[in-house]
Amino acid sequence: MIPQTVIDQDIKKWIAEDISYWDVTANLLPAAQAKGKIFTKQEGIIAGLNIFKRVFDLLGTQVDLLVEEGNIVKNKTPVATVKGPIANLLQGERLALNLLGRMSGIATHTAKMIDVVKKSNPSIRICATRKTVPGLGKYDKYSVVLGGGDTHRFNLSDMVLLKENHLKMFKSITESITLAKAKTSFSKKIEIEVQNEEQALEASEAGADIIMLDNFSPVQAKLTISKIREINANILIELSGNINIGNIENYVIDGVDLISSGSLTHSVRNFDFTMLIE
Amino acid sequence: MIPQTVIDQDIKKWIAEDISYWDVTANLLPAAQAKGKIFTKQEGIIAGLNIFKRVFDLLGTQVDLLVEEGNIVKNKTPVATVKGPIANLLQGERLALNLLGRMSGIATHTAKMIDVVKKSNPSIRICATRKTVPGLGKYDKYSVVLGGGDTHRFNLSDMVLLKENHLKMFKSITESITLAKAKTSFSKKIEIEVQNEEQALEASEAGADIIMLDNFSPVQAKLTISKIREINANILIELSGNINIGNIENYVIDGVDLISSGSLTHSVRNFDFTMLIE
Amino acid sequence: MIPQTVIDQDIKKWIAEDISYWDVTANLLPAAQAKGKIFTKQEGIIAGLNIFKRVFDLLGTQVDLLVEEGNIVKNKTPVATVKGPIANLLQGERLALNLLGRMSGIATHTAKMIDVVKKSNPSIRICATRKTVPGLGKYDKYSVVLGGGDTHRFNLSDMVLLKENHLKMFKSITESITLAKAKTSFSKKIEIEVQNEEQALEASEAGADIIMLDNFSPVQAKLTISKIREINANILIELSGNINIGNIENYVIDGVDLISSGSLTHSVRNFDFTMLIE
Amino acid sequence: MIPQTVIDQDIKKWIAEDISYWDVTANLLPAAQAKGKIFTKQEGIIAGLNIFKRVFDLLGTQVDLLVEEGNIVKNKTPVATVKGPIANLLQGERLALNLLGRMSGIATHTAKMIDVVKKSNPSIRICATRKTVPGLGKYDKYSVVLGGGDTHRFNLSDMVLLKENHLKMFKSITESITLAKAKTSFSKKIEIEVQNEEQALEASEAGADIIMLDNFSPVQAKLTISKIREINANILIELSGNINIGNIENYVIDGVDLISSGSLTHSVRNFDFTMLIE
Amino acid sequence: MIPQTVIDQDIKKWIAEDISYWDVTANLLPAAQAKGKIFTKQEGIIAGLNIFKRVFDLLGTQVDLLVEEGNIVKNKTPVATVKGPIANLLQGERLALNLLGRMSGIATHTAKMIDVVKKSNPSIRICATRKTVPGLGKYDKYSVVLGGGDTHRFNLSDMVLLKENHLKMFKSITESITLAKAKTSFSKKIEIEVQNEEQALEASEAGADIIMLDNFSPVQAKLTISKIREINANILIELSGNINIGNIENYVIDGVDLISSGSLTHSVRNFDFTMLIE
Amino acid sequence: MIPQTVIDQDIKKWIAEDISYWDVTANLLPAAQAKGKIFTKQEGIIAGLNIFKRVFDLLGTQVDLLVEEGNIVKNKTPVATVKGPIANLLQGERLALNLLGRMSGIATHTAKMIDVVKKSNPSIRICATRKTVPGLGKYDKYSVVLGGGDTHRFNLSDMVLLKENHLKMFKSITESITLAKAKTSFSKKIEIEVQNEEQALEASEAGADIIMLDNFSPVQAKLTISKIREINANILIELSGNINIGNIENYVIDGVDLISSGSLTHSVRNFDFTMLIE
Repeated sequence: MIPQTVIDQDIKKWIAEDISYWDVTANLLPAAQAKGKIFTKQEGIIAGLNIFKRVFDLLGTQVDLLVEEGNIVKNKTPVATVKGPIANLLQGERLALNLLGRMSGIATHTAKMIDVVKKSNPSIRICATRKTVPGLGKYDKYSVVLGGGDTHRFNLSDMVLLKENHLKMFKSITESITLAKAKTSFSKKIEIEVQNEEQALEASEAGADIIMLDNFSPVQAKLTISKIREINANILIELSGNINIGNIENYVIDGVDLISSGSLTHSVRNFDFTMLIE
Repeated sequence: MIPQTVIDQDIKKWIAEDISYWDVTANLLPAAQAKGKIFTKQEGIIAGLNIFKRVFDLLGTQVDLLVEEGNIVKNKTPVATVKGPIANLLQGERLALNLLGRMSGIATHTAKMIDVVKKSNPSIRICATRKTVPGLGKYDKYSVVLGGGDTHRFNLSDMVLLKENHLKMFKSITESITLAKAKTSFSKKIEIEVQNEEQALEASEAGADIIMLDNFSPVQAKLTISKIREINANILIELSGNINIGNIENYVIDGVDLISSGSLTHSVRNFDFTMLIE
Repeated sequence: MIPQTVIDQDIKKWIAEDISYWDVTANLLPAAQAKGKIFTKQEGIIAGLNIFKRVFDLLGTQVDLLVEEGNIVKNKTPVATVKGPIANLLQGERLALNLLGRMSGIATHTAKMIDVVKKSNPSIRICATRKTVPGLGKYDKYSVVLGGGDTHRFNLSDMVLLKENHLKMFKSITESITLAKAKTSFSKKIEIEVQNEEQALEASEAGADIIMLDNFSPVQAKLTISKIREINANILIELSGNINIGNIENYVIDGVDLISSGSLTHSVRNFDFTMLIE
Repeated sequence: MIPQTVIDQDIKKWIAEDISYWDVTANLLPAAQAKGKIFTKQEGIIAGLNIFKRVFDLLGTQVDLLVEEGNIVKNKTPVATVKGPIANLLQGERLALNLLGRMSGIATHTAKMIDVVKKSNPSIRICATRKTVPGLGKYDKYSVVLGGGDTHRFNLSDMVLLKENHLKMFKSITESITLAKAKTSFSKKIEIEVQNEEQALEASEAGADIIMLDNFSPVQAKLTISKIREINANILIELSGNINIGNIENYVIDGVDLISSGSLTHSVRNFDFTMLIE
Repeated sequence: MIPQTVIDQDIKKWIAEDISYWDVTANLLPAAQAKGKIFTKQEGIIAGLNIFKRVFDLLGTQVDLLVEEGNIVKNKTPVATVKGPIANLLQGERLALNLLGRMSGIATHTAKMIDVVKKSNPSIRICATRKTVPGLGKYDKYSVVLGGGDTHRFNLSDMVLLKENHLKMFKSITESITLAKAKTSFSKKIEIEVQNEEQALEASEAGADIIMLDNFSPVQAKLTISKIREINANILIELSGNINIGNIENYVIDGVDLISSGSLTHSVRNFDFTMLIE
Repeated sequence: MIPQTVIDQDIKKWIAEDISYWDVTANLLPAAQAKGKIFTKQEGIIAGLNIFKRVFDLLGTQVDLLVEEGNIVKNKTPVATVKGPIANLLQGERLALNLLGRMSGIATHTAKMIDVVKKSNPSIRICATRKTVPGLGKYDKYSVVLGGGDTHRFNLSDMVLLKENHLKMFKSITESITLAKAKTSFSKKIEIEVQNEEQALEASEAGADIIMLDNFSPVQAKLTISKIREINANILIELSGNINIGNIENYVIDGVDLISSGSLTHSVRNFDFTMLIE
């Protein structure tokens, strides 16, 4: 989905980062051809195969992918073979696996959160935040999508999101939303983060597209949502604030559309792969 | 330690990533000055303060740091204040905290592993690997240092490290080390990863600077180390292979110099901070 | 609105483009200080003052702005003074005025189209398209905003816009919109371009956020809009297709929310300025 | 003529500008192959075909060009076909046409001005200025060449051009030209802009290579040119200052070598093309 | 002369090249202020002071220049002092001196060649070629200017220079020059490289601006020049082809305007400086 | 050895530097195919063939290499043929030869110094310094390797090297080395530059990995080395300080491991090649 020209530019920078002069170890190797096979060392969702492949392509080796992007894979599954000069294979291994490991880790974790939610309310979307790693924003968001999640806004240019700190500069929630509607392109949605029921209801009246209930307890959330729904049946409702795999079950409430969690991208657990040279 | 010109170039790219056009929310704010205060929401080691500060500097706001790089900080500690136009404060917040959160997360985790080791063998160094996030290699390594750890080699140009996949291309371990010494600059150390005792002893005889015992059980490691030490008292010995905070205690063995762990940088737990506008 | 770090990176590239080695004319000048004054040579809306100023800032000269961004200015109005080494003033002149001229030209033309519309239907927004100059997208869009217009989507990542060529790949309009809603982040709006009334009504039923009537005659548009409004009072309706300053009057129809025109940015008439050295 | 490596770097940046994350609309399309055909919607000179082609090449689609660079094309002429994945075709369409439209617009307008001049004095060259769009300087100049015009100097490093504002720093025109000849490489020509006959004659005596008569009326120009020619038959004479398609006829004077017009590049009228998916 | 924004971008890249992670030696130093003084270790022309200064500026230290750009300096002359954190001083030292050493080396060598020529024919210009170091073209050319030389054309976009290999593609020298005049902007000069007298005379008749006598012996050159001068007194005549400090004396011939030498930039002798910390 | 993606990025920048707009001479050539052959014009070691080849590859021409990297070649040896459009061949010629000439010049000079040393002590390594050309560090170092030399540390991140100016900040040599061992990664070697015998012996006792005897006379060096060897037989000993091809013979002393010389890279003598179009 990310344009290949963009991916390639990134990979070239990352190769230069990892091989600032030349690979003093690969430099000792004979000019031999070899074949490597990449295996999973755990189960989960595989994500980032195309980025993984481009690393090896750009290093002059050939990749065959054995699974498909976004698939569920079991432990010890072969995911790809790579052929080419042994020096090039070993130069690309770590970079390629770092990317595949992070992206699959994000996708796998996203899928786990969705699994919890799905049981009681399959229409809730699990969403990322902007708590991504600098420089990897688009890869982190794409991994969330492959895991079945929603990107939320890409960045600060993508949607209006009035948070608690913004609201301090306005007389009222109504004023902030009215201004947002007047000054923002029709092409943008307007979301507002609220701290309590009163704010939530004012925001609903004022015509926000999405309301984020920030740090609401499940009980509070339930009450507030039912009142919002009386005002507007179509407004999107998001829950946010330290919701993670450990507690998300409590937030699977009727009427919730979205649950966002920074942990999807800020505290990634690497997906473990290994490359064996045959 | 990382040159400020380099940090600034990175931050400029990351600002452009997060504000690809303009911040459609900040755009609604009045041209008012404000003051923000950043607090910890957990305890640990703070790392990345200068990078955090440069984000705000480059956005035209003023930062006062209230703690020192590498310090242990308690929960709810104020770590910095930022003053300037409210729009600029809020534009920098997420990027600055993403960096501070990741770097402090790495440093804190490194320190925890060191704490375990220190009790019985304070001379062992806890080392990072190249399992860093692409584009953030130097920041990840620097965070490990702030947590008290060792960077290990920076990248593929930094030291010879003959791993299992490399060794398949040589007749013997001795041949590989002999070649490495002949073809590599005097300025580089030569490390070799071994899978068993026999290899370890051959590598010691052949004159490697460092021997990595890969995936050795604690018992195996203990036996092998004592035999290596009979050959060479000064060679550095590294343990590696799925060692993490949960099992590191078992690897604190006499004669070990280094323990490396990919988990320091590939599965980072974000350090939680918050910014309050006063 | 565009981050200053981004503007500065662009300007540095443009300076390097215009002075690939050194300025062989400025090189003849004495090391004298001078003062330049920039005047309008026509009337209109001024746009791009901050970008203009950064060109001179980065060349080591001081700018005082005499008017405000987005103001209406008469012919022969002094808009800024610049002080500094004469060589630097003259090196920046053309680049600074090329930017100010293009941006003010866009803003002025946008305002003219709004003036026409405003008389009979002040709630219609005049919108840009993606027919911007490569490399200047954000500056072109920002100029439209300063002229009172709407950016429309920034780029291909910003909103779903299903056009005639996309629709050929779907069985029906309904299918395309249903898929878009399912596969796209909640944070994005969904717009569809239609060629006739039937499509327009299907799209309205299917739940698009915005419907673009492409190349509808004013009469057709009027009829179709009234039928759309029966289905959905809140859907946004956009008119598009060779609408320009010469014919826009015909498209100021009740119920229209948006009129977009590529001419705002693809056929810019430069706003004329001159710099006099005192 | 512009090196392909340079064009490709530019296009990659422009793709990244237009698809900052991924194309949320193309993302909905099936993985189908398609064929697009690009048609003119007006007549004129076609320019920029190779740049147009590289956009699609870099997006992984195949282009066949049906006309030749610089040709005169009628309305409704097919100029190229593009084959490949439908998503890639539609991602490249706007960028490719924005470039082709601007470049062909410039070439067509240049050719129109030449047509006027050619009738009475075919040896006059129509020249661009540095009033180009930042970042597109070389494309704008190349378009002028394809329309039959002359680039004038590429940028500030390319030729000495002493303008009115420069001359204020010298005691006399003679002094400025003498200095320019002494301090400038033999490889550079020296041009001087003059405001009246007296200056023109002094410049001719002093040995300038080119004299620009700035804002001279046709009558003044005629008189001055005949006097310059008495001094030096070979000096090049340029007319400049608000000369455009509307008034150029008045400036087609005997003895004029060059007429320059900022309008060629600062107020471009887009050449209209359309792409149809078959 | 080179824009400071351009110099700064280059220096930032070079700092990143020399400190790819961080300076592991400077990292050991206390946070102390220090003062360094830079001395010449030979005599010659100093060139590159501003570039030298910007290295230290960008590293956060303060430079005072004690001599002026282009001056003749004796051995053991203090040329600058630098104050600031000791770590920053030592990080900048090598990069700053590498630049100053190369640039002063070029300027000094250029001046030596001019000294030889000046005795018998002070009007001959000593010229550089395009045999510069990739990436340093503008710095190499600027150094030649500071040594009193002429840049010759900056690059391939700067002037037409028809060399022996180009001429193989034309029927005659006359054809090539006629075409060059017709197809090239009026703003460019046209030079032609010739291998013998016959070609030289044909080129003179055909109206080249400059004729390069390539690898002519001094005797041949003398004869040919007198015949060229009979045809055209103003045409510039350049001698080229393995002319260097050792043999240039033989080429100081009446009627020669230019002598170019690749050795000025392709075989630079470094100018020796040292920095002492006080 | 240097990654091809890195080489390609560099070459693209260098092409853009040499052809900032377009090649105004090549632009006159017909669209003909041609074949060029590159010959040596001297004897020596050839270095940089792959970089040379990539220049032509990226310009769309085909190269056949006729010799191998690092070979000794005689005068008038054909080293490569290049086929393709004549315009592209001539555009690449100078850049390709500038690179090949510099790199082969460095390799050839390195080999000459080694030849001198080899006669009496073949185990001494001839080493480069950081006195490389900014932007070409990795190419300069690689050329030294191809000539048979040692790169020494790549850059400031590569090894600890405590020089005279660093030592002023420490109480003693012992303190500096102790600190370096404690604060630096195990993966780095520690070298110290000493000015006299006393310092050399202290450094040996303190456990430096390498001792550089700076500006020692051959007699002093001999004496000091024998005393160092009594303390530590394995420590590496480097001689440095104005050692060059003219005086290196005097420094070929028993017990010396390394001789470094800035002249290898700061005062390169270009290796002469020529390209003939057939």
